Amino acid sequence: MGRVLISRRRDPDRLLPADPTLRSVARELYALTANLPILSPHGHVPAALLLHDEPFANATELFLTHDHYVTRLLHADGVGLAELGLGERAADPREVWRLLAERWHLFAGTATGYWIDEELSGLFGVEEPLCAETADSVYDAVAAALAEPAFRPRALFGRFGIEVLATTDDPLDDLANHAALATSGLPGRVIPTFRPDAYLNAASPGFAEAAGKLLAATGQPATFAGYLRGLEERRRHFIEHGATSADHGVVRPVTVALEPGEAERLFRAALSGAADARERDTLAAHLLWQMARMSVEDGLVMTIHAGVFRNHNSHTHERFGPDTGHDIPLPTSWVEGLRPLLESFGLEPGFQLGLFTVDESTFSRELAPLAGFYPSVYVGAPWWFLDAPHAIDRFRSAVTETAGFYRTTGFIDDTRAFASIPARHDMSRRTDAAFLARLVVEGRVHADDARRIAVDLVDAQPRRVFKL
Amino acid sequence: MGRVLISRRRDPDRLLPADPTLRSVARELYALTANLPILSPHGHVPAALLLHDEPFANATELFLTHDHYVTRLLHADGVGLAELGLGERAADPREVWRLLAERWHLFAGTATGYWIDEELSGLFGVEEPLCAETADSVYDAVAAALAEPAFRPRALFGRFGIEVLATTDDPLDDLANHAALATSGLPGRVIPTFRPDAYLNAASPGFAEAAGKLLAATGQPATFAGYLRGLEERRRHFIEHGATSADHGVVRPVTVALEPGEAERLFRAALSGAADARERDTLAAHLLWQMARMSVEDGLVMTIHAGVFRNHNSHTHERFGPDTGHDIPLPTSWVEGLRPLLESFGLEPGFQLGLFTVDESTFSRELAPLAGFYPSVYVGAPWWFLDAPHAIDRFRSAVTETAGFYRTTGFIDDTRAFASIPARHDMSRRTDAAFLARLVVEGRVHADDARRIAVDLVDAQPRRVFKL
Amino acid sequence: MGRVLISRRRDPDRLLPADPTLRSVARELYALTANLPILSPHGHVPAALLLHDEPFANATELFLTHDHYVTRLLHADGVGLAELGLGERAADPREVWRLLAERWHLFAGTATGYWIDEELSGLFGVEEPLCAETADSVYDAVAAALAEPAFRPRALFGRFGIEVLATTDDPLDDLANHAALATSGLPGRVIPTFRPDAYLNAASPGFAEAAGKLLAATGQPATFAGYLRGLEERRRHFIEHGATSADHGVVRPVTVALEPGEAERLFRAALSGAADARERDTLAAHLLWQMARMSVEDGLVMTIHAGVFRNHNSHTHERFGPDTGHDIPLPTSWVEGLRPLLESFGLEPGFQLGLFTVDESTFSRELAPLAGFYPSVYVGAPWWFLDAPHAIDRFRSAVTETAGFYRTTGFIDDTRAFASIPARHDMSRRTDAAFLARLVVEGRVHADDARRIAVDLVDAQPRRVFKL
Repeated sequence: MGRVLISRRRDPDRLLPADPTLRSVARELYALTANLPILSPHGHVPAALLLHDEPFANATELFLTHDHYVTRLLHADGVGLAELGLGERAADPREVWRLLAERWHLFAGTATGYWIDEELSGLFGVEEPLCAETADSVYDAVAAALAEPAFRPRALFGRFGIEVLATTDDPLDDLANHAALATSGLPGRVIPTFRPDAYLNAASPGFAEAAGKLLAATGQPATFAGYLRGLEERRRHFIEHGATSADHGVVRPVTVALEPGEAERLFRAALSGAADARERDTLAAHLLWQMARMSVEDGLVMTIHAGVFRNHNSHTHERFGPDTGHDIPLPTSWVEGLRPLLESFGLEPGFQLGLFTVDESTFSRELAPLAGFYPSVYVGAPWWFLDAPHAIDRFRSAVTETAGFYRTTGFIDDTRAFASIPARHDMSRRTDAAFLARLVVEGRVHADDARRIAVDLVDAQPRRVFKL
Repeated sequence: MGRVLISRRRDPDRLLPADPTLRSVARELYALTANLPILSPHGHVPAALLLHDEPFANATELFLTHDHYVTRLLHADGVGLAELGLGERAADPREVWRLLAERWHLFAGTATGYWIDEELSGLFGVEEPLCAETADSVYDAVAAALAEPAFRPRALFGRFGIEVLATTDDPLDDLANHAALATSGLPGRVIPTFRPDAYLNAASPGFAEAAGKLLAATGQPATFAGYLRGLEERRRHFIEHGATSADHGVVRPVTVALEPGEAERLFRAALSGAADARERDTLAAHLLWQMARMSVEDGLVMTIHAGVFRNHNSHTHERFGPDTGHDIPLPTSWVEGLRPLLESFGLEPGFQLGLFTVDESTFSRELAPLAGFYPSVYVGAPWWFLDAPHAIDRFRSAVTETAGFYRTTGFIDDTRAFASIPARHDMSRRTDAAFLARLVVEGRVHADDARRIAVDLVDAQPRRVFKL
Repeated sequence: MGRVLISRRRDPDRLLPADPTLRSVARELYALTANLPILSPHGHVPAALLLHDEPFANATELFLTHDHYVTRLLHADGVGLAELGLGERAADPREVWRLLAERWHLFAGTATGYWIDEELSGLFGVEEPLCAETADSVYDAVAAALAEPAFRPRALFGRFGIEVLATTDDPLDDLANHAALATSGLPGRVIPTFRPDAYLNAASPGFAEAAGKLLAATGQPATFAGYLRGLEERRRHFIEHGATSADHGVVRPVTVALEPGEAERLFRAALSGAADARERDTLAAHLLWQMARMSVEDGLVMTIHAGVFRNHNSHTHERFGPDTGHDIPLPTSWVEGLRPLLESFGLEPGFQLGLFTVDESTFSRELAPLAGFYPSVYVGAPWWFLDAPHAIDRFRSAVTETAGFYRTTGFIDDTRAFASIPARHDMSRRTDAAFLARLVVEGRVHADDARRIAVDLVDAQPRRVFKL
């Protein structure tokens, strides 16, 4: 499978270290992975995009509107989200694009800035830097390309060399789109991911309603045992449609084992609205524990993304909805909260648990030591705010000396922005090559081992960790 | 405005990266900012120093006595603070200087060591390294220079190329020194900063007395409404004297919105001594919220310096007073405590809030994400213990990929040590040039953009963030 | 004293920076320390090993069985601890060695991988990389060497150039092995370290039994005063056998000063089982404070290793015992918990307190500021999970700008793996040389000062901090 060509404008050695010795080793390591297929075991591209294969509307739709990495920094510069076309009123996409172009210097050095530069150059062949003066010509160049069949989602899927793309889906999703995609001739797999947050977070006001829906959809009685059977049934449905993992977003990674009677009592109290805050937290922590129990039984890889305060600004949340840029990380600790789960399942053969953090202080302090002992635990690749070259270097530096390379999950792009997928994976491959080069030149890793590791990190390792 | 010349002894490429490619790019970027005027929007130089223009007494007075960065490390080596001339008994300044000189190796690699080396070399032309043998000759060379008119504070102000220097002042200060300075012919502005900690920290034993003084000084009744009017009046006084910002030092950055009746109740209880610890904390948190409300109304930029345990050693505190080197940072988190303030004012046009931390783990985890969404929030430059080349590099690395360069405040020197100001700003300019050079050479930022950013960080950005 | 020769296979510049200018400065600095004697002021080698001088059994015994850095990562890869010969059933050592050899790529980039490579190459002259194919030949080469007198522990002690080796011992140990070693002709000192955790941790279920044993052994009455006298007596016993330090492992570094009556009450309640959890924690915190008081009086250096959740996995703990790889660091803070101790003793002349952390976020936030003020406090060298090149670089970067080099303890190897001692110290010397080289080349430290510091860090500094 070929990968999209890189335009001449971009430095072919970008992200590689400046020192000539390091750079030449890094270049050689990068060359081994640059054209390998993309395995994307966690992300947020909708299956419908690839099924319906509608052309992308324009540069604004493609790069800006749906990417809260972009809208947040424009918002921070004083551009209202409504001006960007979020919320109820539409905005002229060309005008919105100009708002971005004239502020493009704000993105210098950011992850988003890098990705969009990569896409404009590598995908659309745009050679001129984005700025107020070039806003319209870039917009037009992108529009012209998007009108071509080669820029439809399915064509891009092929050009990108995607072998596996995981979506993220509600447990009650019928996965009809995935079923249709499976026989649609796409040159790669699109698999669902079971994401049951709404059905686990008993502390949320919407829990009783969500739980009721799940019970109804699965024809289960309103008991905890019935609820677990309902969740198990939906997991089976996902597995039948190709899912290999279940993902869990929690504010704090807390788990608890409960006696069945106590779980039943808490569940009924939560459904009836009689549970107090502490009881609801306990039920949520137990449901997370139950997810691990189910993973042991049905084989779905379990991933946990923890430590984010969602919807920090309620005004923006009310007017523009979630995922509009004001989710903020919190101090996180895994060691005590995950212990009940790991006591019960941490040594179970076949159980695999990827832990993703946005609190960097946990990389060396907790995640590498946990993954360096429990056969089930893998340190998740740098996620969200940390999904960028310097942060990845800090991650490898913090994790490797304790846990090596083979206790990490491999890169996930975690993106809604379909067109950014190759740029993100390429960034990761370059950054890992740079890190490995330093170990080689400083005499810590043999060149042969570094070559094997570079390839494994984008191939064998994600296949094994995510059971692809 | 010319800047002080750098002596031949110092490496002209100091603080720039070793790699020749990186170094040449960094050198070019640094050259663009090396001679730009100094904007110092936050610091602790007394206005009287520049008004009275007394000569500095000697090297000890200039470099050591008033600088707790220096006294702390000498104290750690076993030199009593009394021996250094702190406290009641005077000490022979030449003897004190010798204590420093013979311990100068203790300062190798520290921020303080760098600044003093810079000053001795760049300002006083001292070519020999400081050590026991050179103690006296260096002391004498500094003394000879200080006797010259060119080394008086006002002359140095001009040679340093200071365009704006902000002091830090008590709300009840009449600011007569600032008024006198404004018409004194100084080639730059000296502006006050409103620093109301003593009048906000209701948890402190001195609060009732401080609040009483403010009420009396402003002729307000002893009600919460009266107190707020009194604070507003003093802020106006500061604004009339050129202030553009109000600074707040808190142990934990916690804010709370209160109903007026509840605030009134807590305020009266605090004045009468009837408030318990929790009520006093709540009142303090509400007063911080009120400061933001006032900033929205009167336009003063709000800065918060949080997370320091003050006066950790009570024996030293009792004998030698505060600011003698035993303030120690604490784990800090901003996300939940600042939320009430940001819910109320975070999206207000014109509101600007700079957040300064000494807990590095908050840079990538909290501050960059907050500043990357809220138009009001800026990540404060590395402060205090973090105000040094390696720490600044870690700061840029942690912040830039999420928030870029334009969501940071620009450098503040935060110093009492007037003569160190150029060395500190120069250090920051060199370190930022080094960071930008890496982004250029690794293909992440165009050279043109890097040049713009380097200049903006010392010019447009602090002007905008601090409304200079 | 000569040090073991480095084999040709290893890059002589390993761990030094890639940049030629940096590398040449680092190489020069490293050359100054490469052959200096080893001072090992904290570690876990049993005195009996050097007294009885039995040959090491085989490569598995030497490198794997007793090193939880090795067993943990094999366990994480799915190899059961029983397969490795831990627990009750013996395993064929050659088979166990093969398990390691075929998984050797898992250790690439880890601290353990580096040390074992160093030992195989530098000590045993093994030129071929370890892997499934070479497992047997490497095993045989090690076996052949171990059969030689030159590879007995005492011979290695001499070849390693160890001048001082501190063991870690129970307060009730009679130290007969140490006494015998003192007159055994070993070309260096083996000194005990007083490690009273079991007798201080009143929160542990075994406390009453341990305290009873200590009271009985020292013939003291079951009062708190008697208990303190008993502890003091055992410390004297250690001092008479050469001990210079007392080491303390605690989960959270909390101290408290108590009135004698209250301490007495808590102690009796703890002995009788009547104390609740809070009382037992308070007693433990007070006993830690008492250890500082005793150190002030008897001169033993106090070290605290804090912040590790021990025996995270209870199944493994029950079956294979402690120290089998599932100790996991926790978020740690020192500032408030240590304050009572530092208020009482922090300024006492001669008191020396080394603080060791596995929570890196405390290096710049707390430990450097504490050590930069209190004459008693030293920042402990990077410990356990942080005892590796990248982590040491982060440690120096985080600590030096605030506290310089002379407020750090110097390297400790903290190892049970006797044969790894030279590799560990050599790693530290190389890494510090690399860090210093950057300061020299960036114009921050004079080359002369760097040379002095490099040597002091492995010689004068540990001698002074540990009173060797």
